[in-house]
Amino acid sequence: MSAERLARLALSRLGEPGDLRLAHWVTELGAVQFHDALRAGAELDGLNTELAARLPSVEPERDLERASRLGIRWIVPGDAEWPAALDDLEHVEPLHRMGRAPLGLWVRGPLRLHELPTPVAVVGARSATTYGTDVATELAAGLARAGSAVISGAAYGIDQAAHRGALAGDGPTVAVLACGVDRAYPSRHKPLLDHLADHGAVVSELAPGCSPTRPRFLARNRVIAALSLGTVVVEAAVRSGALNTANWASGLNRPVMGVPGPVTSAPSEGVHQLIRSGAASLVTRATEVLELTRPAGEHLVEPLRAPSRPRDLLGHDEQRVLEAVPLVRPAPPESVARTAGLGLVEVRASLVELRRRGLVEELPTGWRLADDADQG
Amino acid sequence: MSAERLARLALSRLGEPGDLRLAHWVTELGAVQFHDALRAGAELDGLNTELAARLPSVEPERDLERASRLGIRWIVPGDAEWPAALDDLEHVEPLHRMGRAPLGLWVRGPLRLHELPTPVAVVGARSATTYGTDVATELAAGLARAGSAVISGAAYGIDQAAHRGALAGDGPTVAVLACGVDRAYPSRHKPLLDHLADHGAVVSELAPGCSPTRPRFLARNRVIAALSLGTVVVEAAVRSGALNTANWASGLNRPVMGVPGPVTSAPSEGVHQLIRSGAASLVTRATEVLELTRPAGEHLVEPLRAPSRPRDLLGHDEQRVLEAVPLVRPAPPESVARTAGLGLVEVRASLVELRRRGLVEELPTGWRLADDADQG
Repeated sequence: MSAERLARLALSRLGEPGDLRLAHWVTELGAVQFHDALRAGAELDGLNTELAARLPSVEPERDLERASRLGIRWIVPGDAEWPAALDDLEHVEPLHRMGRAPLGLWVRGPLRLHELPTPVAVVGARSATTYGTDVATELAAGLARAGSAVISGAAYGIDQAAHRGALAGDGPTVAVLACGVDRAYPSRHKPLLDHLADHGAVVSELAPGCSPTRPRFLARNRVIAALSLGTVVVEAAVRSGALNTANWASGLNRPVMGVPGPVTSAPSEGVHQLIRSGAASLVTRATEVLELTRPAGEHLVEPLRAPSRPRDLLGHDEQRVLEAVPLVRPAPPESVARTAGLGLVEVRASLVELRRRGLVEELPTGWRLADDADQG
Repeated sequence: MSAERLARLALSRLGEPGDLRLAHWVTELGAVQFHDALRAGAELDGLNTELAARLPSVEPERDLERASRLGIRWIVPGDAEWPAALDDLEHVEPLHRMGRAPLGLWVRGPLRLHELPTPVAVVGARSATTYGTDVATELAAGLARAGSAVISGAAYGIDQAAHRGALAGDGPTVAVLACGVDRAYPSRHKPLLDHLADHGAVVSELAPGCSPTRPRFLARNRVIAALSLGTVVVEAAVRSGALNTANWASGLNRPVMGVPGPVTSAPSEGVHQLIRSGAASLVTRATEVLELTRPAGEHLVEPLRAPSRPRDLLGHDEQRVLEAVPLVRPAPPESVARTAGLGLVEVRASLVELRRRGLVEELPTGWRLADDADQG
């Protein structure tokens, strides 16, 4: 096992996260044999020699030792902590020429990744609106209170709100980074990341010390999607990282959900597009997310019902009379009786009862509804 | 034809709009024969004698004459102006024990109902938010500018905004009322209704002078849905007339569309439920409505695209170098070359070109991205 861990660490140092060539040869030969073959200078079809050229400068034992001093661990497939959900990435089509399961993950924090309870990704725009961050916070808090772990990317905006909401709901939360887990990006989120490292987990494919680059964010997004049973996008511009995460979740056949917003708000446009295209389901609250991400029946959503109204409690004749009473211009009982198709005596009795219930009023010229607030 | 018109008018005076018994016997016997049978005192199975009892007080010729003086016409199936789309109601399941096509329609205004160009219903909450009325106005104006007629119910809130938007977009607009077309309900909308009567059309199943009642609103909603190729709901409480109109549109197999809003806004809850249940498609603008309501291909929506960015224009190597440049902490060219997997000479040249384009910056300790505004 130690050889496997070291081989995977060394290989991860040769290329970028999501490198398809590395993943291919690990599958073909196994990590240890592949690593050995590279060291022996083997000619491997499709493998750029630039990868092998970096091998001499890689020192996996030293990496592990340094990481350990920083309280950072390296987990690989086969480890108890390896989340099996990540292996589903092996069967997903690459996006932007990257993909497959990570060779391993660097983890900082007390949470064990294989024990995350029904994890849900909550992601979205960095340039979020206050509406978006309010909704993301509330949603993540609701998920946390219901016992779900919240996965996000620790970016400004929605990501930050998701982590904070999960913490407010006293739930586990995990940040997946596009740089080393010892780095703070953005730097103003250092306190948040330190807090997550103390109470949750901070995770990355990249070794400690590594900087974020654009492709690393794209590769990181597949880890967020794969660690989660489903992905919720709260606000997302038309071309954005959050939509990339949603694409990975789709590829994994996991639920993609979108929280709508005002159609006048640019950060909601990407979400509305996802829903319109059928790629995402519209969700408005945590219970609806749970319904889609938890095993069937475990969390059924009660459909919203309007409160019952006084007139729901009326008898059949009183209903008919009420329906025949004009909204504005008062009508005499004879006219109400004609519209209702009932006798004048019953109508007079019903009108009195309806007045007692505050539903109609009598004016000198006749009867009308006491309020015109709901005409159905 | 005159006998048919008079018979239908007389029959419409015997019951409420959407009365299933009247519709049944008109289908079975024809309007004229049914009317004759009633006058002859025939025993008609399933027909409440209360209907026949009202017959003596009905004076269709006088109704027509009075209406004519008010500039109101009565149209029935077979008339050139009768909109064939209404007849689809004959095949729709009743809702709230009412349904079927109207026996005829009272019309006030210059618009001819059979010539409405690609009519679309825009309906929603009376207690709408400013967001809702702004969006409804903009949507209706967009539909009008694209040549569509806008159908609504002249109520407060979304209905009013829909009519006003259509007028602002210089398009035809039709109000369907739950009272006589000579009445103004709500009374504060008298100027709007008078304007519609001068420039568009005001329509009702109910004879001039009739008052609105709750069931008349429900029956009216089926006419709004049936006059339109599709129905858009802008804001709607969970239990509301707009959702009833949407139900009629569904029953007619016509597109139902919903404009989302903030999940924190009660008037958007009904719309979100419609979309979640699959009953409505999410739409955000007029072009998306046209795509769903006009014949295929006539109005294809261009998918929203983010504007192209400077880096979309880069060559392959420059792209690779740019992707290897850190976001924050500057890196020397050697490090960038290692991440990019390219030679140092090409990398230096690319970095200079990228700087010229304003994409990267050089600091004493190395190179980094000029802005971190979009990491994908």
